[in-house]
Amino acid sequence: MAKQTTAPTMKDVAKEAGVSLGTVSKVINGIPVGEEYRKKVEQAIKTLDYRINSYAKGLKNNRTYTVAVILPNLLNPFFSMVAHYINRALVKHGYRMLLCDTDYDYTKEQEMVQMAEQNKVDGIIALTYNPDLKISPNVRSVSIDRYLSGNTPCVASDNYNGGRLAAQKLVENGCKNLAFLRIGSPIVGETNKRKDGFVAACEAMGVRCEIKNLNDPWDNGNFDPMKEFEAFLTEHLHDGKLDIDGIFCVTDRLAYQIVQLLKSMGVNVPDDVQVIGFDGLRTFGDMNYYCSTIVQPVEAMAETCVNLILAEPSATTPALLCLPVSYAYGGTTKA
Amino acid sequence: MAKQTTAPTMKDVAKEAGVSLGTVSKVINGIPVGEEYRKKVEQAIKTLDYRINSYAKGLKNNRTYTVAVILPNLLNPFFSMVAHYINRALVKHGYRMLLCDTDYDYTKEQEMVQMAEQNKVDGIIALTYNPDLKISPNVRSVSIDRYLSGNTPCVASDNYNGGRLAAQKLVENGCKNLAFLRIGSPIVGETNKRKDGFVAACEAMGVRCEIKNLNDPWDNGNFDPMKEFEAFLTEHLHDGKLDIDGIFCVTDRLAYQIVQLLKSMGVNVPDDVQVIGFDGLRTFGDMNYYCSTIVQPVEAMAETCVNLILAEPSATTPALLCLPVSYAYGGTTKA
Repeated sequence: MAKQTTAPTMKDVAKEAGVSLGTVSKVINGIPVGEEYRKKVEQAIKTLDYRINSYAKGLKNNRTYTVAVILPNLLNPFFSMVAHYINRALVKHGYRMLLCDTDYDYTKEQEMVQMAEQNKVDGIIALTYNPDLKISPNVRSVSIDRYLSGNTPCVASDNYNGGRLAAQKLVENGCKNLAFLRIGSPIVGETNKRKDGFVAACEAMGVRCEIKNLNDPWDNGNFDPMKEFEAFLTEHLHDGKLDIDGIFCVTDRLAYQIVQLLKSMGVNVPDDVQVIGFDGLRTFGDMNYYCSTIVQPVEAMAETCVNLILAEPSATTPALLCLPVSYAYGGTTKA
Repeated sequence: MAKQTTAPTMKDVAKEAGVSLGTVSKVINGIPVGEEYRKKVEQAIKTLDYRINSYAKGLKNNRTYTVAVILPNLLNPFFSMVAHYINRALVKHGYRMLLCDTDYDYTKEQEMVQMAEQNKVDGIIALTYNPDLKISPNVRSVSIDRYLSGNTPCVASDNYNGGRLAAQKLVENGCKNLAFLRIGSPIVGETNKRKDGFVAACEAMGVRCEIKNLNDPWDNGNFDPMKEFEAFLTEHLHDGKLDIDGIFCVTDRLAYQIVQLLKSMGVNVPDDVQVIGFDGLRTFGDMNYYCSTIVQPVEAMAETCVNLILAEPSATTPALLCLPVSYAYGGTTKA
């Protein structure tokens, strides 16, 4: 076959494969044809380096090749990491990302849902603190970290095992008196399981464990969570020595703040007390960890979300999918 | 007028204003009508709290109310900050953000340009290291930090003055022997002016200034910029004392690395040497600065980009728009 001077068309593919235009169209649009025909068409596509025009394709099968991604705030490095990897996974499949950074304004989320209902986007991947987000069952959707009403599957880290892992690591490193610190949304989400797993592991190992669990002060401007944590730690400080020697914080962000607080109280990290966070965030996105941490598999989570959005829903679609976490040393523990 | 029980329509607006439906349509779509009519329609829109349906509007005036935003990598906190504020500015104007995180793969950028040419998006805001990005003149576009070919206006921080400000602050804080350190793209962009402003201010103040300017090792895997900087600093270390007492780094990221390097060399920051970065990034997006820094006005830059994209191009559209920077103390200087 002579070298093409312009981009090959579906007609060229049909000619090269020796099949009808309709057969090429069926193969491209995923409609079953005889195995022999499918192979011929695929070979011709390869030979000609034929690129499927996704816009034309979209017009035919009513797809936009765009997925709406709802995140609370891109300034938070965990959310921007989620956006980065979801974008990468979408691009792999020839999809684009309509990104909605809600700034915690939930009316924006509902607009995205409306777009999905009007087939302006092919689906929604949402990480939200809005307990009232309603997505109709005919819209493809995936939630990260929390259960939404309806039949939206949820993708999360294995938070429970992450909590267990944190307790085990602290005990392995010689800690005997543990504490769990949390500040977060009062909404019950997957992340609450970090505490449950931590407490269960402490009980199983027969290790003391104190809990300080604060809810976000959505409606109370005078509430200062760091003051509460300082009061908690001060209670445990006797003659300049903390009677807690291992702390698990619900996020790296909190761990970072607690390490600063401990330093200001004259308590040495990790010699006097070891601290583990959760998320696996890195300084400037790719440098050192902020603290020793339970690393969320964000890239795998993003790929899982995209695979769920693009797959045909079926009886085997899971309600919850938890991906394995790992421990990373980041300087705030002894190992 | 009785209270509406359902959302008001254009017909309701026409009735309230006492004008024809066509007049309402013209006002909504920005087509000139008599001043008196325009006022009547605008008053009726206000009275009824009529919301323009942007999808219906889009169908009529060939707008998508979507702007493509091209960024290199959302893991980098500067780029995720840019995305956050552009999204906010777009939402203010009833627009949505199609976000393209290229992962430095420039074919993705060209796809966005194609979409804009096909009117799938209304414009492009791009921050790119691709010197070959071609945007046709009939596509509305704005570039951040670098000049693109064609008539794309460029929005940037006042990088030159930022460099001057850094030199002035270091000298104000008692420094007498300054250095500028840079690692970055070999492409000439707005950020190169940080050095120019710094050097000019040093010359004006009669202060010694050394330059170490490295290009990104795009094609040389063995090149380690931090080793180069270490060699540079070691040359200036005599009997454990650095003969440089003030360093301006081209980014906060580099400043953070240089501070770590100096500590490992036994040099105290800020007592022995003061360090200023550039960008104004905060730990976890909203906590303390990583270092003393020249703060880029990212929110104002984002709003400027969006205003330029949405405005009708005219003879007064600038080629370059530089927004004012400021200095922030972040612990790596004496004040």
